[in-house]
Amino acid sequence: MSLQALRKEYIPNIPCEISDINITVQESSLVKVDKKIENIFEKTSKSPLLSFISGKGKKANFLKVGVLFSGGPAPGGHNVIAGVFDSLKKIDNRSQLYGFLNGPDGILKNKYIVITKELIDNYRNCGGFDLIGSSRTKIETEEQFKQALNNVKSLDLDGLIIIGGDDSNTNALYLAEFFLKENFKTKVVGVPKTIDGDLKNEYILISFGFDTACKVYSEMIGNLARDAMSSKKYYHFIKLMGRSASHIALECALKTQPNFVLIGEEIFKGKKGLDQIVKDIAEMVIKRAKQNKNYGIILIPEGIIEFIYEIKMLIGELNKILSSYEKKFKSFEDKEKIDFVLSKLSNSSKKSFLYLPKDIQKQLLLKRDPHGNVQVSQIETEKLLIDKVKEELKNKKDIKFNPIAHFFGYEGRASFPSNFDANYCYALGFVASSILKEGYTGYICAISNLNKSVNEWRGKAIPLASMMNMEIRKGKEKAVIKKALVDLKGKPFEMFVSLRDKWIIEDNYKYPGPIQFFGDKKLTDSCPIIIK
Amino acid sequence: MSLQALRKEYIPNIPCEISDINITVQESSLVKVDKKIENIFEKTSKSPLLSFISGKGKKANFLKVGVLFSGGPAPGGHNVIAGVFDSLKKIDNRSQLYGFLNGPDGILKNKYIVITKELIDNYRNCGGFDLIGSSRTKIETEEQFKQALNNVKSLDLDGLIIIGGDDSNTNALYLAEFFLKENFKTKVVGVPKTIDGDLKNEYILISFGFDTACKVYSEMIGNLARDAMSSKKYYHFIKLMGRSASHIALECALKTQPNFVLIGEEIFKGKKGLDQIVKDIAEMVIKRAKQNKNYGIILIPEGIIEFIYEIKMLIGELNKILSSYEKKFKSFEDKEKIDFVLSKLSNSSKKSFLYLPKDIQKQLLLKRDPHGNVQVSQIETEKLLIDKVKEELKNKKDIKFNPIAHFFGYEGRASFPSNFDANYCYALGFVASSILKEGYTGYICAISNLNKSVNEWRGKAIPLASMMNMEIRKGKEKAVIKKALVDLKGKPFEMFVSLRDKWIIEDNYKYPGPIQFFGDKKLTDSCPIIIK
Repeated sequence: MSLQALRKEYIPNIPCEISDINITVQESSLVKVDKKIENIFEKTSKSPLLSFISGKGKKANFLKVGVLFSGGPAPGGHNVIAGVFDSLKKIDNRSQLYGFLNGPDGILKNKYIVITKELIDNYRNCGGFDLIGSSRTKIETEEQFKQALNNVKSLDLDGLIIIGGDDSNTNALYLAEFFLKENFKTKVVGVPKTIDGDLKNEYILISFGFDTACKVYSEMIGNLARDAMSSKKYYHFIKLMGRSASHIALECALKTQPNFVLIGEEIFKGKKGLDQIVKDIAEMVIKRAKQNKNYGIILIPEGIIEFIYEIKMLIGELNKILSSYEKKFKSFEDKEKIDFVLSKLSNSSKKSFLYLPKDIQKQLLLKRDPHGNVQVSQIETEKLLIDKVKEELKNKKDIKFNPIAHFFGYEGRASFPSNFDANYCYALGFVASSILKEGYTGYICAISNLNKSVNEWRGKAIPLASMMNMEIRKGKEKAVIKKALVDLKGKPFEMFVSLRDKWIIEDNYKYPGPIQFFGDKKLTDSCPIIIK
Repeated sequence: MSLQALRKEYIPNIPCEISDINITVQESSLVKVDKKIENIFEKTSKSPLLSFISGKGKKANFLKVGVLFSGGPAPGGHNVIAGVFDSLKKIDNRSQLYGFLNGPDGILKNKYIVITKELIDNYRNCGGFDLIGSSRTKIETEEQFKQALNNVKSLDLDGLIIIGGDDSNTNALYLAEFFLKENFKTKVVGVPKTIDGDLKNEYILISFGFDTACKVYSEMIGNLARDAMSSKKYYHFIKLMGRSASHIALECALKTQPNFVLIGEEIFKGKKGLDQIVKDIAEMVIKRAKQNKNYGIILIPEGIIEFIYEIKMLIGELNKILSSYEKKFKSFEDKEKIDFVLSKLSNSSKKSFLYLPKDIQKQLLLKRDPHGNVQVSQIETEKLLIDKVKEELKNKKDIKFNPIAHFFGYEGRASFPSNFDANYCYALGFVASSILKEGYTGYICAISNLNKSVNEWRGKAIPLASMMNMEIRKGKEKAVIKKALVDLKGKPFEMFVSLRDKWIIEDNYKYPGPIQFFGDKKLTDSCPIIIK
């Protein structure tokens, strides 16, 4: 008997106000957007917030809908598709769902499969994006937009659902606007996916996948904490995935109560340098050693490096150099790359660059991701910190310091979704269909009251234009969804601040253990702490 | 509601033939031991195998017993103590259980706590060894034996239970023999603990902790496999803890069906060189690339490095050099260390040493563990293989090869024990008490029929002397328990061999998911595949 088999039988729990196909829509007042945004999204920027309530909505005929994943996997993705599939079939059994293969590539190359009941039944409540695959391809050029249009035309799609993060939902709005301008019927709807938790606002409490990923990481952190308490001789430096923002580290910290946690946003606000961070950690090690505690747990968000003031400056300069001299740079050997950037860096950034160990220098010059960002997960910050703390403690011969480096990331992206994510994603699938049925475009799906019992969950739709901001990307100003960072005035961070001083000396570790799918609902259906 | 709280309520499932305190013992014929072993263990080498069955055993008065953990944590340790505690109290409520603190150190320094119901209730079915801690201290010198004797005398102990791996159980027998020779009453009993699974024989099907650790690692491997299937662009090189033997890798392979698995014992038998291993992996990468599969899962036992013929020779020479020049060596800087060993190595080992990347060279010269072994978990074999495979594929520009290195080890040592380990450990605790109650010494506890339903489990006791072998340790011949390696003629390995060719090209991944404690017993109570 395998969990894989049993899990497929789970029936996600969503309220009838979302599962009912006779749902109707309520428009609230228009969301005000910036003039610049309005100019870019002429057709889609004057959209109201939508709420779905029981009642008689539009009578839809059968719908033809395409769906695709964009970006890294997040637990629950298959349940979004299951929710869309079930709701479309409920609306009209003749409805068709197409799954574009390998992410945005699929819609550019018109590669797709028809989603059938047999197919989706095999993926219900399972992790990964493997039913149709994913990629990080961006739809950016005029030619790409036209290709996409041709292909939705050829399938005669009423709707296109893009399951992705901030950049992918930005893309969704550009597509929605383009289809409208070209007078074609396909409506575009986004679904907030990302384990990083950085796609949120007052309506989107959290993106899907965050809950599960944090639970998987916290299981491992708890296990390491119990190991530390048992063998009493290791400092575990644990880097956690999450891109720039420190949401994952914060959630895992509240779940496991480690000895020390770095929060990128706080470091940036305090303009804390690498030096000071290293000193803080070394100070904790010394304090604990005095109590005969030569072990501990330290959490490091992978994005931290971008928040250390002098490193942020350095990365900014490096990004510019790398995009200006992209071709030239590719032809260089490692040594030449370093000499080249040293000749271009400002004096202060040169100093910061030279302060870093050789390995980290190399890692900072690695290829950017398709959005031009440093690939933070490839920078071994955990080892950088270990090296520097070792150096700091060099003269304290009596201090035992045995550090071990860990990185948890890929382990949490494709795991079985928690009941929370399984339910949430299934509900998002229903909301996506409802938006399409009612004929709206340029929206992202949301569920309100996620921190309350499922009975109180309600479907919402947020105009993507209302989430846009002007930012510099690859040297040019562009309308994009702003990444939500940890709010230093928010309740979760405050809760953490009120507790963390104790954690430094006392061992208040919590051991969450593996995600449970059966048994007491209070255990199996909990939501993330940071949205409670 | 936390799992931590709920888990304490679990009542381990053991048959009445083990939980009954009116159990009696059946002796079977003496186990034949080698002459050399007989000479070392005059008093304890002529012991019969013991089986426990329902019936009227010796009427014991209250017992005073000490217990200690030795070596790295393994899931279930606290349940051994719970089993000992509950059975002692059942025998006579006035019985006392002392927990020696921080492993063998506790018995040398006479540091202990009295185990009470309140105390143990807080640790039932929980991971880690933190109730009393552990260490890797060996009791070796005459002085240490005398200290131990003094301290068991001062507590007037009837029994001492040592929960540990092969080396710790070796120690248990030396102590048993010493106490007998000194005519003191304390009986010594060992309990087979180690996640590595290398402490086993025809009576001990598996050591405790192995099941849980493999389930934790397999959860993560499955998650990575699903991630690989979803994003289709990474090769995950996963190193797994397990010391020399490849049991953990084999069990995890059968649970998750990765693309490629190294088995140390097979590599050694085939005298396979590092070169050939690298070529095999590269060949798989090329084969898969032809099918447009630029992703995969590769399992690497941490002990592999000792099984690669030329590296084994090299490590053997290094071990000798390091123990002969221990003091001198400590005073050297890294560079001097390398020059020094190069001047001492044979020509062929010098060649092997120089073939390795600088980082690995340094790692091979790190401090040995207290038993004089290379600390294999500190050697980054996964990165060594990645480097070499990259080199091998250098001229194949069309092959996409994005490797990511992982190491799973500490995450599995202190996690919540699976139901199998929780039950098994609790049963072991009862058997340990039964052996003491019946007055035997120099034994290790075992449970037969572990691969059958709990109702069929029975208590056994194996004379430790029957497990002894003469081996060279730190340059001297010594009687020790031989580590059990993967049997290349055994069923588990054969099963693996019959399946693995398919795994190379096809993606037959299984996703075991997180350990479940509630729900269908077929899911929650499964035993390791390799003992099925």
